[in-house]
Amino acid sequence: MSLAPVIVLVQPQLGENIGMAARAMANCALTDLRLVRPRDGWPNEKSIANAAGADAILDAARVFESTEAAIADLTEIYATTARSRGMIKRVLTPDAAVAAMRATTTGGGRPGVLFGPERTGLNNDDVALADAVISVPVNPAFTSLNLAQTVMIVGYEWFQAGTDAPSEQLVATHTVPATKGELHRFFEHLEHELDVAGFLAVPEKRPSMVRNIRNIFERAALTEMEVKTLHGIVSRLVGARWSGRGTGEGGSGSA
Amino acid sequence: MSLAPVIVLVQPQLGENIGMAARAMANCALTDLRLVRPRDGWPNEKSIANAAGADAILDAARVFESTEAAIADLTEIYATTARSRGMIKRVLTPDAAVAAMRATTTGGGRPGVLFGPERTGLNNDDVALADAVISVPVNPAFTSLNLAQTVMIVGYEWFQAGTDAPSEQLVATHTVPATKGELHRFFEHLEHELDVAGFLAVPEKRPSMVRNIRNIFERAALTEMEVKTLHGIVSRLVGARWSGRGTGEGGSGSA
Repeated sequence: MSLAPVIVLVQPQLGENIGMAARAMANCALTDLRLVRPRDGWPNEKSIANAAGADAILDAARVFESTEAAIADLTEIYATTARSRGMIKRVLTPDAAVAAMRATTTGGGRPGVLFGPERTGLNNDDVALADAVISVPVNPAFTSLNLAQTVMIVGYEWFQAGTDAPSEQLVATHTVPATKGELHRFFEHLEHELDVAGFLAVPEKRPSMVRNIRNIFERAALTEMEVKTLHGIVSRLVGARWSGRGTGEGGSGSA
Repeated sequence: MSLAPVIVLVQPQLGENIGMAARAMANCALTDLRLVRPRDGWPNEKSIANAAGADAILDAARVFESTEAAIADLTEIYATTARSRGMIKRVLTPDAAVAAMRATTTGGGRPGVLFGPERTGLNNDDVALADAVISVPVNPAFTSLNLAQTVMIVGYEWFQAGTDAPSEQLVATHTVPATKGELHRFFEHLEHELDVAGFLAVPEKRPSMVRNIRNIFERAALTEMEVKTLHGIVSRLVGARWSGRGTGEGGSGSA
């Protein structure tokens, strides 16, 4: 059994939301769904219709008569609630909560997260069962979070904290980044042709113009193929200028 | 008009998802919704039913015939897509993308985020309009993200990056945290009574036992009222021990 957090939906009302919550769980590699007294019984056709294929999670979901029973085997409980309940609890943002959950699972514990009914949210007795509260930071003027959206936010933070996805990458299929040498040969080609064309004719302005032009292409993080294409474009434009027809020779690359 | 990112739904199919996207936008203080050729026309009853009160966003939503038209006044475009499109684009996680968007708005620019149709996602022509791609890190075994959930993740990251919500806080209503002095007076009270009761009678074990007991209460981040309650509990228990009836005097606090 995975040590990922257990999702506990307490008295969920709409089957659609249970299904969408299961889908969100699947997106986030969460697998253990528990339901406390779902209003419309279980299984629920609308849940299946809204799970978008996350059927395995619905099939494995267990139904409990009480929140206490649903969390009996877990070691650390978080209650999602927007409102302060007059209870003295640690209140965590989702990212702080998943950091605590990761520490728990590393230590061999098993966390669970409680989500309340759509209309009312968790009642005070259920919140009291929790070690800490998760409060999603939202627009104070519109705090009504959909149940499945709340599951997604917690799950997303959980999944994100466990991936080492680089925050930025350049996806380049069937090609490789241009080397600086390739880039500079293109710059020389372009600047030579611009000199010939008289575009860089004012000596005191030339250095800053060259720099500005180079910056454009530097910033583009060009691939080898794109540099070839740019060589071709410059050559073709030059050929067109001389031939006057736009079909001059010199193109060597293609997009 | 706010400089928050514009949400552009390209050919959305289900009115429900448009409504839920509007609700997610409201949660995240996003206000500008644009629709490119919504399949079922506009306005849409199902959108209103699923917006949970975010009607102002739906009322203000504008419909466009093309993605180009929808983004014409924006300065920086992000395309949400799970799949690599064989295009050479920067690919950002949602949190990296909102950091870039915050830089854009600080500089006076206005970012927009494109979301594709439910079934197919954005087509290549729409992705090509973007400066960068947003790829939500999800379980590779289940990458099918609901449209409104994707809007929520981007919006949530946006909102979160703009709030200075402390990642952890202790919510205590009508009370204040105990000072260390109050806490230590309670420790002295408790340890005195434990000494009297013979609980700490083994001298070489006493220091570690005291430390362990203190740790329990230190960790609880007690309030002033709770410390008073604990004093009362200790006094009451001591009174009960002497009186043998469980109703001895000495209690001064209450929960």
